Amino acid sequence: MSKKTTLAIVAVLSAASGAAAAAALYSSSERTRISRAKPVSSPASPDILRTGKALLTGPVDPAGLFQYGFPGPVNDLATRHSLVSSFDRRLRNPVWVAEHITPESLALKNADRKYSSFMEDEAVPPKFRAKLTDYFRSGYDRGHQVPAADARFSQEAMDETFYLTNMCPQVGNGFNRDYWSHFEDFCRRLTQTYPSVRIVTGPLYLPRRDPTDGKWRVSYEVVGNPPNVAVPTHFYKVIFAEDGKTGGNVSLGAFVLPNASIHNDKPLTDFEVPIEAVERASGLEFTEKLPLERRKRLCAEVNCSIIVRQFEDRQKVKGLPSPRR
Amino acid sequence: MSKKTTLAIVAVLSAASGAAAAAALYSSSERTRISRAKPVSSPASPDILRTGKALLTGPVDPAGLFQYGFPGPVNDLATRHSLVSSFDRRLRNPVWVAEHITPESLALKNADRKYSSFMEDEAVPPKFRAKLTDYFRSGYDRGHQVPAADARFSQEAMDETFYLTNMCPQVGNGFNRDYWSHFEDFCRRLTQTYPSVRIVTGPLYLPRRDPTDGKWRVSYEVVGNPPNVAVPTHFYKVIFAEDGKTGGNVSLGAFVLPNASIHNDKPLTDFEVPIEAVERASGLEFTEKLPLERRKRLCAEVNCSIIVRQFEDRQKVKGLPSPRR
Repeated sequence: MSKKTTLAIVAVLSAASGAAAAAALYSSSERTRISRAKPVSSPASPDILRTGKALLTGPVDPAGLFQYGFPGPVNDLATRHSLVSSFDRRLRNPVWVAEHITPESLALKNADRKYSSFMEDEAVPPKFRAKLTDYFRSGYDRGHQVPAADARFSQEAMDETFYLTNMCPQVGNGFNRDYWSHFEDFCRRLTQTYPSVRIVTGPLYLPRRDPTDGKWRVSYEVVGNPPNVAVPTHFYKVIFAEDGKTGGNVSLGAFVLPNASIHNDKPLTDFEVPIEAVERASGLEFTEKLPLERRKRLCAEVNCSIIVRQFEDRQKVKGLPSPRR
Repeated sequence: MSKKTTLAIVAVLSAASGAAAAAALYSSSERTRISRAKPVSSPASPDILRTGKALLTGPVDPAGLFQYGFPGPVNDLATRHSLVSSFDRRLRNPVWVAEHITPESLALKNADRKYSSFMEDEAVPPKFRAKLTDYFRSGYDRGHQVPAADARFSQEAMDETFYLTNMCPQVGNGFNRDYWSHFEDFCRRLTQTYPSVRIVTGPLYLPRRDPTDGKWRVSYEVVGNPPNVAVPTHFYKVIFAEDGKTGGNVSLGAFVLPNASIHNDKPLTDFEVPIEAVERASGLEFTEKLPLERRKRLCAEVNCSIIVRQFEDRQKVKGLPSPRR
């Protein structure tokens, strides 16, 4: 995917969210109200519906289906030492993976990548699981969403970043091993300015305009035999840089990068988007409970840019002999 | 999409599920066990994690993110008189819509489609909502997942089928107004044999093999300006025909049809697939709690075929002057 296309997509995302973003930013309580004002539905948990009893009067009982099991979706929330992840059983990729880094946590060097190995996540039922064989010879790296290097405080924590529920197929050269890696490094460097940094990372599947007919289409590869794991078109990170005070300020930054080779000369700020753009594209919400007066803009406070270090050098520096993929 | 391609996809789905389907069919309790054996994660509800307290010891607290709100996904479960639906905020389509029909419910004719109108579902936050304008001039019908004609027992019940959370973009001629409609009629006719029929309907986004490079890709249009609502490549129905006895037999049938014009000569059984194929493709589970000894195969018991009646005639017969779209 060309940079031009990427820019166009980000532009569309931004355009899509322009007025709406502002509106949403200034009315988060209003949004909450609306989302709870379901006409005849209740914000009932599946557990309530699982009883199979009619919640509404009438000659039929649609919720009676649940006597055979609740269809889902189940998002396989996994809480590890180094991350919390949510999984998409249809696309066999995480929906989001959340991490937390601090100057102290990054200073602890109790783990080495060479002792970790990629693992299928047995917490996900076999038919919905991403498998090691899906990635084998797919042409894509097993791309960490929460980087292994962010979890060096214990070997167990680092090992947990190697579950495939923390992984997506990523382009290797020019992306996972290069620009994306520099971007991860940027996130770690934020701990030089902020005492506590939270990062949510995940895949996106964005449409682009087909020049032949002007229609917008989402198109992505599915790897594995039979086809099993989707190859995201893009990845996002939403960054929460905290000032360390209870109820203090949170500097927010959102970035969307194409799953493609990106030239190191490309400014990181070219990939900055409104958080609302990530929310619209992912169907998620990131700041529903964060009061407006506590929100700052990350890239207005720090220099949002990457520092390029070659992959081979980085491997040497970190003493990480095993390849990322 | 050609019928050949469709067949290939169904074949792949079936092939993908062959041995696994059998295995799953005979080990549903085993699957349940596995899905609950999360290594260090818990099947905790988001509510527990929303406290922002560390569930695991360590120098960092990834779950602390939830102080700013739980990202989701939220599936906007809606319980109506005529249906229960789950919504995909990313694709702006339902994930599944469940209904229940009986000979008695279908005999009640207290509603007329001419009094119903398509409605945006205000229970879904604006930025994740499918909008009437997304469908306008899109070239696609607003295709009911639970058909209006299945909810004639009250005007309110029928009206509720017109929420866009019960709708997907469907090809009109040759599909929504033709083959798909005949298929819906087949489902209603099942009440001549079974006293109680449950149907789950929803969209699929299936990969197909690109002949140019042999890779499997999912490709679908997104309608609206800006692009907002995905156009599914296929639709599924999973049918539970109950014998009416408590703990009685349930005849199961699963069908996957392409969102494309289908010739009326095409046998319905060409679209029959193992339920496991729908589960793999949708990420859902439909029969987790249904004991194996209660399961029968629908198309072994009844003649799974459509009866063709022209759309215009059908409109006259039913006194439904307004077009389906």
